[in-house]
Amino acid sequence: MTTPASTPAPGSVGTVSTQYRDLPGAIDLDCGRQLNEVRVAYETYGALAPARDNVILVCHALSGDAHAAGFSTEPASGSTRDGFRADERDSGRGSGLGWWDGMIGPGKAFDTNRFHVVSSNLLGGCRGTTGPSSVNPATLQPYGSDFPVITVADMVRVERALLKELGITRLAAVAGGSLGGMQALEWAVQYGDDVDSIIPIASTHALQTQGVAWNAIARNSIVADPDWQGGQYYGTGRAPSAGMGVARMVGHITYLSASSLTSKFGRRLQSSEDIRYVLNEPEFAVESYLRYQADSFVKRFDANTYLYTSRAITYFDLARQYGGGRLADAVRNISARTLLIAFSSDWLYPPLDSQQLAEALRSEGKDVELHVIDAPYGHDCFLLEEARQTPIIQAFLAR
Amino acid sequence: MTTPASTPAPGSVGTVSTQYRDLPGAIDLDCGRQLNEVRVAYETYGALAPARDNVILVCHALSGDAHAAGFSTEPASGSTRDGFRADERDSGRGSGLGWWDGMIGPGKAFDTNRFHVVSSNLLGGCRGTTGPSSVNPATLQPYGSDFPVITVADMVRVERALLKELGITRLAAVAGGSLGGMQALEWAVQYGDDVDSIIPIASTHALQTQGVAWNAIARNSIVADPDWQGGQYYGTGRAPSAGMGVARMVGHITYLSASSLTSKFGRRLQSSEDIRYVLNEPEFAVESYLRYQADSFVKRFDANTYLYTSRAITYFDLARQYGGGRLADAVRNISARTLLIAFSSDWLYPPLDSQQLAEALRSEGKDVELHVIDAPYGHDCFLLEEARQTPIIQAFLAR
Repeated sequence: MTTPASTPAPGSVGTVSTQYRDLPGAIDLDCGRQLNEVRVAYETYGALAPARDNVILVCHALSGDAHAAGFSTEPASGSTRDGFRADERDSGRGSGLGWWDGMIGPGKAFDTNRFHVVSSNLLGGCRGTTGPSSVNPATLQPYGSDFPVITVADMVRVERALLKELGITRLAAVAGGSLGGMQALEWAVQYGDDVDSIIPIASTHALQTQGVAWNAIARNSIVADPDWQGGQYYGTGRAPSAGMGVARMVGHITYLSASSLTSKFGRRLQSSEDIRYVLNEPEFAVESYLRYQADSFVKRFDANTYLYTSRAITYFDLARQYGGGRLADAVRNISARTLLIAFSSDWLYPPLDSQQLAEALRSEGKDVELHVIDAPYGHDCFLLEEARQTPIIQAFLAR
Repeated sequence: MTTPASTPAPGSVGTVSTQYRDLPGAIDLDCGRQLNEVRVAYETYGALAPARDNVILVCHALSGDAHAAGFSTEPASGSTRDGFRADERDSGRGSGLGWWDGMIGPGKAFDTNRFHVVSSNLLGGCRGTTGPSSVNPATLQPYGSDFPVITVADMVRVERALLKELGITRLAAVAGGSLGGMQALEWAVQYGDDVDSIIPIASTHALQTQGVAWNAIARNSIVADPDWQGGQYYGTGRAPSAGMGVARMVGHITYLSASSLTSKFGRRLQSSEDIRYVLNEPEFAVESYLRYQADSFVKRFDANTYLYTSRAITYFDLARQYGGGRLADAVRNISARTLLIAFSSDWLYPPLDSQQLAEALRSEGKDVELHVIDAPYGHDCFLLEEARQTPIIQAFLAR
């Protein structure tokens, strides 16, 4: 095997390192509390123009991190990789290839020959940015469930504070998939004057009921694990891995379409010619795959980050937050040009949500493009369908 | 509140009691093991004709029991009922209204003025039929996970043995939804000469990959609960209620369509005007609903029965079992007339599965009718859409 860091692929941003920035002062949160001594993990790709007018902020989804592109020099987790390509992209491992490497780099959708791309780990994260596993400066103990309940708006406040520290006050674009797209929408609504354009992909203005339910099931699975210990499990030698494993399994199935699962695994048995009459040992290939996904996820991800991020996802609701219940009213102050991309097979963030959003924006006379890409991989399309997203994004950014 | 048992609704079979029958000899199982001293819980509705030729066997789904119609005289569990009507029908409580009361009774789809309907709790169950919570006669301890891994074919063997004990050797029809439909199909393939017709509703010849995955997630959630104790939790005072609660939540969402969830709950908050910034306390109405479903289910259902039944559901595969991988070959020996009903919004047992089955039957020259009913309630339609199933079933049985 070649060493990735020494032989970056053509179009790669090359070898990168995650950087860290301590924010001055306190961050005011929606819940009324404040967070002090917030640290943010981030990476940048491409040169910042002297006029500082070529910045694209990329925002990640639930399980991602700051390492969006290029090869990380941090040590790899050592776990083998198989299954869907999404495993490799949605790695969040802080090592290897970035989770959106197919989209960020020279000549790619987010072209680093032209743009300075900033990618940060979100507030509440477990990959370098302050979150529930961080030490609370007031107690010198990890926050655990004393961490304040945060919102997507809070995540955006921290991103804005980071950019200010980096001397950046204006964004050419904010882009992201899923929860990343929610952050882009928050940017446009809250800080319209600072953002030229937003690109929410496979995202929504508010999760529909079934999505709220899946998130509740995942959270319930974690808190039902006795090793969660009310959230104060750090330093006890026990983390709610079993519960978070089940949460990850649920998540994983909702990220894929039924037809892509059928294509990939069908009813293929994992390790024998015929069924073995075993109660719960993996028998079908898809059962083994789920176990692998759960096992590898719990090694790299913090359960409390899952809880807090999941809650923020369910709370996000532009109409409730900014429109008194009316989506059109909520988007009235948006001045950024908007590019929405949705995928036909995405049943977690269905195209209908993006259509509702586009309609609301159009009803307010906003500049909005919606592209529904017919593709089979479900919600994970935003990580997989680079070839079809790229020309759309390039054309939008070139306008 | 009136006492239901004293005032049966028009068309009801009235007050009923579950009966029990001990089967003689041993039941040979697919896994190669035998079960001795098998007891079966069952109910009957309508008179048996002197010629014993008017019998319909009704088979239940994962969470059901023998109490399919009428009012049970057994004590109620005392839990309040709310939410979907499915809560009431799919009660499995051994009390109150039977789970398919809308379909079984005088003048109903399964007309007890004409037919003698037999409904039994399936093998592996926890509502009176021998299952993992039963005492193993060889050890005088509950089986727990020493219970053999069973299949749908094994369930059918027990049903046949019960009917033989009742002096019934020929069936006018075998009917059931979901897993109940799988049993009907097994009957037709294994005992074609004994069955005039089968009515598999919202069912399949083999669960697709996503369904296999949901079942694996549910089982993993149960066995990940430390209170499962390797399956030997009886008498310990601790049962894997938390894990099974999460399993039930997953199941529940897969039984409903996304649009029916949206119609019922939307993003309505449960108990306040605005969000309260709580990490996992139920905030949205759908979150409270899931908690309620989980809590009420774990009070009435045994986790090991869930595991064994779920495994049997995933194993069921007519093409693998009887056709060397080819569905058409598997159905070649079926002589029963077949009525298939599927529902447009059922994404767990999608209409496509019934279409594949109908095509295989037709390719072999079999007598098959398929009706895909356009209805919004997902898999639960088989419990809810009586009015639209009834004329189809009545016409089929009248032929």
